[in-house]
Amino acid sequence: MTNIDAVLRHLDADFDGAVARLTEFLRIPSVSTDPARAGEVRRAAHWIADQLAALDFSVSLVETARHPTVIAQHPGTPGGLDGGVRDGVPPHILYYGHYDVQPPEPLEEWTTDPFDPTIIDGPHGKRIVARGAVDDKGQVMTFIEALRAWHAVHGGPPTRVTVLIEGEEEIGSANLAATLEAERDRLGADICVVSDTTGWDVDTPALTTRLRGMLYTELYVEGPGHDLHSGLYGGVAPNPLNALTRVLGRLHDDQGRVAIDGFYDDVRDPDPETLAAWAALPQDDEAVMAEIGADGLDGEQGVSRLERLWSRPTCDINGISGGYAGAGSKTVIPARASAKVSFRLVPDQDPDRILAAYKVFIAQTLPSACRWRLEVHSKSTGVEVDTGQPMMAAARAALEQVYGRPAAPIGCGGSIPVVGMMRRLLGIDTILMGFGLDDDRMHSPNEKFELRALANGARSHAAFLGKVAEGSGL
Amino acid sequence: MTNIDAVLRHLDADFDGAVARLTEFLRIPSVSTDPARAGEVRRAAHWIADQLAALDFSVSLVETARHPTVIAQHPGTPGGLDGGVRDGVPPHILYYGHYDVQPPEPLEEWTTDPFDPTIIDGPHGKRIVARGAVDDKGQVMTFIEALRAWHAVHGGPPTRVTVLIEGEEEIGSANLAATLEAERDRLGADICVVSDTTGWDVDTPALTTRLRGMLYTELYVEGPGHDLHSGLYGGVAPNPLNALTRVLGRLHDDQGRVAIDGFYDDVRDPDPETLAAWAALPQDDEAVMAEIGADGLDGEQGVSRLERLWSRPTCDINGISGGYAGAGSKTVIPARASAKVSFRLVPDQDPDRILAAYKVFIAQTLPSACRWRLEVHSKSTGVEVDTGQPMMAAARAALEQVYGRPAAPIGCGGSIPVVGMMRRLLGIDTILMGFGLDDDRMHSPNEKFELRALANGARSHAAFLGKVAEGSGL
Repeated sequence: MTNIDAVLRHLDADFDGAVARLTEFLRIPSVSTDPARAGEVRRAAHWIADQLAALDFSVSLVETARHPTVIAQHPGTPGGLDGGVRDGVPPHILYYGHYDVQPPEPLEEWTTDPFDPTIIDGPHGKRIVARGAVDDKGQVMTFIEALRAWHAVHGGPPTRVTVLIEGEEEIGSANLAATLEAERDRLGADICVVSDTTGWDVDTPALTTRLRGMLYTELYVEGPGHDLHSGLYGGVAPNPLNALTRVLGRLHDDQGRVAIDGFYDDVRDPDPETLAAWAALPQDDEAVMAEIGADGLDGEQGVSRLERLWSRPTCDINGISGGYAGAGSKTVIPARASAKVSFRLVPDQDPDRILAAYKVFIAQTLPSACRWRLEVHSKSTGVEVDTGQPMMAAARAALEQVYGRPAAPIGCGGSIPVVGMMRRLLGIDTILMGFGLDDDRMHSPNEKFELRALANGARSHAAFLGKVAEGSGL
Repeated sequence: MTNIDAVLRHLDADFDGAVARLTEFLRIPSVSTDPARAGEVRRAAHWIADQLAALDFSVSLVETARHPTVIAQHPGTPGGLDGGVRDGVPPHILYYGHYDVQPPEPLEEWTTDPFDPTIIDGPHGKRIVARGAVDDKGQVMTFIEALRAWHAVHGGPPTRVTVLIEGEEEIGSANLAATLEAERDRLGADICVVSDTTGWDVDTPALTTRLRGMLYTELYVEGPGHDLHSGLYGGVAPNPLNALTRVLGRLHDDQGRVAIDGFYDDVRDPDPETLAAWAALPQDDEAVMAEIGADGLDGEQGVSRLERLWSRPTCDINGISGGYAGAGSKTVIPARASAKVSFRLVPDQDPDRILAAYKVFIAQTLPSACRWRLEVHSKSTGVEVDTGQPMMAAARAALEQVYGRPAAPIGCGGSIPVVGMMRRLLGIDTILMGFGLDDDRMHSPNEKFELRALANGARSHAAFLGKVAEGSGL
């Protein structure tokens, strides 16, 4: 039996323990965007730190302007490798994840308490339902359980490992860049591994090679100094809601394209091989409509769904408020209104250039009688992963061993700011090895994670570490 | 001394008592749109009923589907008229008002508790600050105090009087029509008198000859069955906020006109005399901008402010909600969004025809992937008052006697549904004799009523009753 097989067997034997630990982690309401939850966010950081300290990692809590980052390191246990490492430096793997979660709202749409994890049966076996189940606590636990198993069987991981878990991913990782630069000496790894994406389906693994970036803004519009009676002032006073929606309602043209001048200037099509690989993937728009419960799909006309998601930029209004939101009617012209608008960006699109173009669009569209200001909540660039990097081979091999089939090369419409930062600030490439499913309801009520995905994720990371060590040629 | 002079002197002597009674009335939070306040709304109805019972009116509380209507009647006291009424039927005056008020929100913008009336000094002397101060509790008390004075001095009003005070004006008077028809026998008056409008300024009375009608709607849009992650579904899932704002943002064209097809088909310009009378009124747009605290005014280009307000229809978004409204950012595509939109209509515009046109506009503008439905909160038609009616002469004479200057003929941008109903259902014309000021902050935080307006309003109604009786030729 190889060292890897023994670790995989230990993972299987201790799976109930893994589920219990994830449940405990999910009970902590670490909502990073909510100032009232700051204490709970910190509690989640300590919980992770304790987990890694128990595996003989040297752990430190690195403070930031807001929520702390956990950094833990292990030199590796050469004895854990066939023949051991006689000399030379073992490869250095940097695992990244985040312990913060999205707000659970709207609470009334949850069938169970978002912070009281519940295990229920589904088409793929048992699943755990809670805020953060898949994004990202469940996925963080896949590699922590892999490290735990290596520690239990061989005394530690077979190669050098650093784990960085931040608490601000759901609010744009505003302080992460500063942390990476301050900790650059400790973080100089050969590769970064992130589990915050999806597989292709529950039986088919995937390696994500593209991520979209994001520009998240909030537009505030002011008209009169106080609320007014719409009868006494309608047709005379500037209405901030009329003005705001005039801007928002013109953000898209009739073909579903973003109407901001210059928005597509730097958008580049993926290379033909990538497009061919995507085209080869089975696509079922009807299934997606059923999955999200919509009567139809939307977006740029004449572009396939996977391309719209993986290689095209978008604009979505994420929240809006203004005027009377209570029951019934109130004939008011409100003093102010605001809207949260986010842009998903593709590689080569510069968030600052898009921001400038959006401001020009607002200035040209908003009636002059209203005052406005734009706040930026977060900015990140899109990423294209170098699929030729050597560690990718170990990842492919690990996934194929665990799943019995090759990993699909996919894109991701979401944004993981750390990937761009790792390359820009530390010169480190990233492997995106994720185990979520499209129907995991990330950021939605009743978010879940398949227990089978938890098990296969942990097994995949355990095999990956072993193959990195074996393949390191030491 | 005439009977009228004695009544006016009594009003002056008892003015402190009038202010104390108004204060008591304003303490009742009779917010008709808020189901949680239903008990308080009913308490306000009982308070009014008690006031009139104390003046020897026969009072009844008429139940409706929601909030009760107070109807009180007095046959008139011939002895109160010089020489008395020897035979024949005295004229019958029907006073209309409402005891319900707008919601006080946003509460944080009030400098005092909206339901703890406060008297402060202002440029026109003392004023009372509270929700409902001018709309309509303070104005209702102007004619109730006039009736109280006639009762104190002459044992009752000099002519037959019926008072109807409803509790649903701020929510569109949905049940008033049914009440008018059911009570038609008791309500067959010669004229209806309403005090729910403004004077020209604190020293110049006004008679309102035009009112706008209203269509108040709420548009509900649904996309996916549950909230989605904007990264995993942006560019694929229909976003109800993108769809809703697409409709709202196109409601006005670049000239500030409503862009709904057919919206202006039935809009008729006022007669030249009316336009000339308005043009003769002093207009100061800068003063209005300062009054509402805005950097500019809005509305149809090339149309004067008073015409935009008094003779042109408008469209205002009064409230909107959807997505994440909390602090910070949330990358969500919401399942649903909604917007309250009201249209101010001019005489000859049919609310049902406008409603149908709005529905066509929505169907043509909203992306097909979204479901939608439209709820109607209220409907009323615009009104043009017959300025030639005989009772108008008594009103003009009364106002001129009290203020020492003639009343200005003005329009009102607001809607008072009862005026159209009175004519349509009972064939009764209405005199709109109001004592509010444009800066009374109707429907806004820190709503107020000038104590001088309360005094002059009560004096005007007292004089009006006397002149009606004198002029009745009985």
